Amino acid sequence: MGIWFTEKQTENFGITMKVKQTLHTEQTDFQKLDMIETEEWGNMLLLDDMVMTSVKDEFVYHEMVAHVPLFTHPQPEHILVVGGGDGGVIREVLKHPSVKKATLVDIDGKVIEYSKKFLPEIAGKLDDPRVDVCVDDGFMHIAKSENEYDVIMVDSTEPVGPAVNLFTKGFYAGIAKALKDDGIFVAQSDNPWFKADLIRSVQKDVKEIFPITRLYTANIPTYPSGLWAFTIGSKKYDPLEVPAERFHEIDSKYYTKELHKAAFVLPKFVQDLVK
Amino acid sequence: MGIWFTEKQTENFGITMKVKQTLHTEQTDFQKLDMIETEEWGNMLLLDDMVMTSVKDEFVYHEMVAHVPLFTHPQPEHILVVGGGDGGVIREVLKHPSVKKATLVDIDGKVIEYSKKFLPEIAGKLDDPRVDVCVDDGFMHIAKSENEYDVIMVDSTEPVGPAVNLFTKGFYAGIAKALKDDGIFVAQSDNPWFKADLIRSVQKDVKEIFPITRLYTANIPTYPSGLWAFTIGSKKYDPLEVPAERFHEIDSKYYTKELHKAAFVLPKFVQDLVK
Repeated sequence: MGIWFTEKQTENFGITMKVKQTLHTEQTDFQKLDMIETEEWGNMLLLDDMVMTSVKDEFVYHEMVAHVPLFTHPQPEHILVVGGGDGGVIREVLKHPSVKKATLVDIDGKVIEYSKKFLPEIAGKLDDPRVDVCVDDGFMHIAKSENEYDVIMVDSTEPVGPAVNLFTKGFYAGIAKALKDDGIFVAQSDNPWFKADLIRSVQKDVKEIFPITRLYTANIPTYPSGLWAFTIGSKKYDPLEVPAERFHEIDSKYYTKELHKAAFVLPKFVQDLVK
Repeated sequence: MGIWFTEKQTENFGITMKVKQTLHTEQTDFQKLDMIETEEWGNMLLLDDMVMTSVKDEFVYHEMVAHVPLFTHPQPEHILVVGGGDGGVIREVLKHPSVKKATLVDIDGKVIEYSKKFLPEIAGKLDDPRVDVCVDDGFMHIAKSENEYDVIMVDSTEPVGPAVNLFTKGFYAGIAKALKDDGIFVAQSDNPWFKADLIRSVQKDVKEIFPITRLYTANIPTYPSGLWAFTIGSKKYDPLEVPAERFHEIDSKYYTKELHKAAFVLPKFVQDLVK
């Protein structure tokens, strides 16, 4: 059999995959970090034994976090990514010509360092001149920002460990303050099969702060249940009412302008969570 | 840790789940059959060590196989289900009041027998008076049918073992003959992440026989990659052009009339498979 990595996605269910080699492993100041080479998914980043991203399927998550809000906003220029130290969201953000500056704030510099080393396809754009990389607490960075960003993307780990503050109503209120008057934010929101309560409570909190709140999903095979949810909070622009002329050509493997809309059409049991 | 069942979905990747107990296990004339009780998914049917259906997530597959073609057809009366011995598709078919007769042809009577015993939520409608259950070879049943069915649903196992004939162009030609002049068929078509070649070749074969060929997907967490594909071949009615008045209320947990359309909007890498 050889070496296999197994992630318990719930107490009683998980995914398991063959490991070619472990490239790096350490306990950082914030979390356990492993970089492994897998047979099925290529190089893969694990944090606290959970799959964060893999070379083979990373495009889904990174495209869907970035392009849905960026095509919703008519002129996204200043972007903040909270978390996302692997650089995948930044890479997608830079595909939008309107973007002048993209700030990445990840609490764990080691994630950035080892992503650059072992995931160059993903992290390769972190050195772009439009990118400002800060190793800092995203919650604190948000708290001291005001009227600054067009789009904020929360590319966090799960609400255990260092990301626990990023799933609170106080954080969403801070995001609203950090955004300009017509700003949009998106946050990864785990999955509807095992984390229905989380999705429900995030939706409730965001709805109390943002006039437009939406949920959309994408298929990510290395994430629990294969169905991943994203919450959007927007002050002015509705992701469901993007004028056709706003969509420009984009190099993508998952996102299309048709899928932009279809991703918001939820299975009935998911729709019921956000009512 | 206790007892865990692991399905290798590829050589190097799989899912693993905790087993409360094994309810039944036998080598039938056609395949290895296991009925297990799992902590996460409830009772579950395995054939040749592959997950077929589970009480917790079965609704996705069964609703999406049944309702997409049945709402596409204006008056579906005679239905054939090939495979599907667990009875889940039949249960969904019977929710359509136009249906007069639904024939189930499964090659393995043991699947039917043990589904009735251990999956009553799924198999409970197999005794409905509108249902005709035949233990027979689906390929042969199709070969001797002509101009008989409004909708045919192929709810088969993977193209290894007893279902290998059900993925051939000869089978699709037989289906076309067995359908009425305005008939529709749907077949489960595995997943785009690991079986791209299969999806491509099924699409090619079906396109040569049916004027309208479409692919749609649904999220099934216990199936490989969580993204499952379904192929439709139709002689007359396009599942993308269903008049609004054709949708009637239906008791569902996944399918909605909005999702009916959105399910055909494919991620770009899947769209590229069916071009």
